[in-house]
Amino acid sequence: MIASSATSVRVGHAALDRLRQALLPDGLLVDQEDRAHYGHDETEDLSFPPDVVVRPRTTEEVAAVMRICHEEGLPVTPIGGRTGLSGGALSVQGGVGLALDRMDRIVDIDERNLQVTVEPGVITQVLQDAVAAKGLYYPPDPSSRGSCTIGGNLAENAGGPRAVKYGVTRDWVLNLEVVLPDGTVLWTGANTLKNATGYDLTRLIVGSEGTLAVITKAVLRLVPMPRESRLMLVPFTSPYKACEAVSAVFRAGVTPSAMEFMERDAIDWTLRFTEGLNIQVPEDLGAYLLIEVDGNHADELMRDCETILGVVEAHGGGEVLFAETSAEKEALWKLRRSVPVSVKAHSIYKEEDTVVPRYELPRLLEGVKEIGRRRGFQSVCYGHAGDGNLHVNIIKGELSDAFWENELPAAIREIFQLTVSLGGTLSGEHGIGLVQRPYMDIAFNTAQLALMRSIKQVFDAKGLLNPGKVLP
Amino acid sequence: MIASSATSVRVGHAALDRLRQALLPDGLLVDQEDRAHYGHDETEDLSFPPDVVVRPRTTEEVAAVMRICHEEGLPVTPIGGRTGLSGGALSVQGGVGLALDRMDRIVDIDERNLQVTVEPGVITQVLQDAVAAKGLYYPPDPSSRGSCTIGGNLAENAGGPRAVKYGVTRDWVLNLEVVLPDGTVLWTGANTLKNATGYDLTRLIVGSEGTLAVITKAVLRLVPMPRESRLMLVPFTSPYKACEAVSAVFRAGVTPSAMEFMERDAIDWTLRFTEGLNIQVPEDLGAYLLIEVDGNHADELMRDCETILGVVEAHGGGEVLFAETSAEKEALWKLRRSVPVSVKAHSIYKEEDTVVPRYELPRLLEGVKEIGRRRGFQSVCYGHAGDGNLHVNIIKGELSDAFWENELPAAIREIFQLTVSLGGTLSGEHGIGLVQRPYMDIAFNTAQLALMRSIKQVFDAKGLLNPGKVLP
Repeated sequence: MIASSATSVRVGHAALDRLRQALLPDGLLVDQEDRAHYGHDETEDLSFPPDVVVRPRTTEEVAAVMRICHEEGLPVTPIGGRTGLSGGALSVQGGVGLALDRMDRIVDIDERNLQVTVEPGVITQVLQDAVAAKGLYYPPDPSSRGSCTIGGNLAENAGGPRAVKYGVTRDWVLNLEVVLPDGTVLWTGANTLKNATGYDLTRLIVGSEGTLAVITKAVLRLVPMPRESRLMLVPFTSPYKACEAVSAVFRAGVTPSAMEFMERDAIDWTLRFTEGLNIQVPEDLGAYLLIEVDGNHADELMRDCETILGVVEAHGGGEVLFAETSAEKEALWKLRRSVPVSVKAHSIYKEEDTVVPRYELPRLLEGVKEIGRRRGFQSVCYGHAGDGNLHVNIIKGELSDAFWENELPAAIREIFQLTVSLGGTLSGEHGIGLVQRPYMDIAFNTAQLALMRSIKQVFDAKGLLNPGKVLP
Repeated sequence: MIASSATSVRVGHAALDRLRQALLPDGLLVDQEDRAHYGHDETEDLSFPPDVVVRPRTTEEVAAVMRICHEEGLPVTPIGGRTGLSGGALSVQGGVGLALDRMDRIVDIDERNLQVTVEPGVITQVLQDAVAAKGLYYPPDPSSRGSCTIGGNLAENAGGPRAVKYGVTRDWVLNLEVVLPDGTVLWTGANTLKNATGYDLTRLIVGSEGTLAVITKAVLRLVPMPRESRLMLVPFTSPYKACEAVSAVFRAGVTPSAMEFMERDAIDWTLRFTEGLNIQVPEDLGAYLLIEVDGNHADELMRDCETILGVVEAHGGGEVLFAETSAEKEALWKLRRSVPVSVKAHSIYKEEDTVVPRYELPRLLEGVKEIGRRRGFQSVCYGHAGDGNLHVNIIKGELSDAFWENELPAAIREIFQLTVSLGGTLSGEHGIGLVQRPYMDIAFNTAQLALMRSIKQVFDAKGLLNPGKVLP
């Protein structure tokens, strides 16, 4: 655990009083325990407690908090569901932790226009269930959907398995209400499916990791819920062959609603650390592809499955396990969704969120393994293969602390250099946050970074909003 | 025709010499005729010739031109296919017209990753045909796709009929090579389907109407070409009922690949001004919906059509005309695509590109007609109803020049106020450019406009790139 340099409350009494007065009762927390609670997310074992936590209930309260922090020169770090994997919600400079967990209302489900207006603290799965009850579908589904929030999803431009067919969070947002660092409240666009009116502030905010503005409301697009799905688990002896099969499926004309890759070790550990999974793993398994298709009619899906079976067979896929019932589907998804926590349970690790053009996946996987062999570390890889998005988990295991501290950064740098050389980039869906920031120079040159810094300057001239993130 | 205030070459001899030396032979044009040619697009009858036209062939030439203009303080206006409807390509301050029509190479069709890299001057339909020859599909299809270019499509975030299912240009771009106003060349992102690495410069450039940077290359996403489509023309007595049917179709669970609305007058004029169309119009026709579904299997489309037929019948739709052959499909699409030029042939007109949440379409149409009755003008409406995107054409006809000059702006203002009050905005796909600029205050308040101005300032501190556009 890295302790914050902020060990005592550095927010002055006058500022604290102003904040307290701007918030409804119990909207401000200064206890050690509360600060610790809001001081970590799911990024490694990092802990950076804010000096004070504020928990507004309304946009007006957020605006008041931002205005006070702007005037008092206090750093503010927006905090969502704290499921992030890049440290975006960590209060690395202490100051004010702006927890949006109380702004968790689904304001309006507009069934006529297929839109929903939500506050940022709504948990993704809660939103999905609420619209599903009306026959509607909000597809973005990060693995942490049971605890992550829409605000965090928007900030990080989160993906998930269904992004391969339905797109990432960015593709589902129509309009955002945001509070700027100086307390100004504004909407970024309009509640329309198309918009060619001025600069696209909406998509500039999405993925900016809480460094430009605080999202206080979002209007999201919905579609009717697809009525049918088929889910299959395909074993491969060679993980590289599994990766090759991925792009071949798309070229055959099928767009699966999920196309997930899991290496053998990920499977073994998940079966060891997760209860209630009963899956017979072939002895020579190298990797699984978990493939889902969805649609409205069983016969369409049957045809898609036939096409997929042809492709995976041609690439050395073994006997395919079809989930026949809802319970079987749930079990296969549980297997996939349990991989991250199981890797975490197995060992200290570092996770990189590499993404490349889809066809380059086998090259990326081979390269990662080669770097590991040469530098002496084990990695386990899984992820959203259909998007070319491979989560590379470097396992600490028996490695020395000295290696972990001193030699790993160079290894990670090499992995990212490989990724970029394949036409890819550092992060597909986890964001840069704190921990990928030292590698931004691999993806961007000084001109690109200067442009991003200037944009940050436009929104946050004082550099108070989520400081120490994204830009090196 | 509004003549440019720039009637003589105001680019000094020294600057002209520098530009000439930076370009390959015949890359610089100063003839009156050439300047006039590059001085208009399809916006009303406006004409703003640049003082000098440059026609670079490479990114390096564009960078050299931008550097010189930056140093010499010369305005630069990027010029694409000159099919724009908001005046985005007009050299309103004279200076240098940067025509990108010679940068028209399809650099690479990457069939393995389903991507294509193009220069900005590639005509949209040329790109579509080239990828179709490999079984691939680039869906965005503005009505002008036979003459508009990818660069212009990106600049305006162009849509078209297929946007309703496949999204607008923004949704198909992965990465852009751009030249900044000071001549710096950079890529905005990576060639990946997902990207959570730094700010989304790609989508900030898309739709910025050539005011932030000059696009010199684009990496676009492709999908396999759908194998089947069905096209139907549905007559309605009441145009309002037709509009009501639109959102009902989506709520029934079908997402058509086109859902176009055309009022009676638009049909009559199109049949009068277009050769080779043979369509029997019902006597009591108020409006048509042109509805297309696409997919890979005939039986799926049959089911979609059945659902659609049920919905349109419930909303008073009349006898549906199905296009049975390719020729019949082509004829119906020709009818739709000929509407804009036919309206233009009928009378001087002004076109507004209103967009609202889909369900609000009937309210928008009623409101536009009511404003017309009250203020004494005729309008004819058509457009991409499935997106809530209604092109409102105000017809000059017998109206006096005085009315047209003095009273129309207030009427347009009222139409936009109505649009915004319905949750919509000024432009769905044509952009703001020159002619919608006076109305930006209806869609955005001073805080929103200030933010956009500051972003403009980051890219173009001297205000030389496409000056006089978008921001009031």
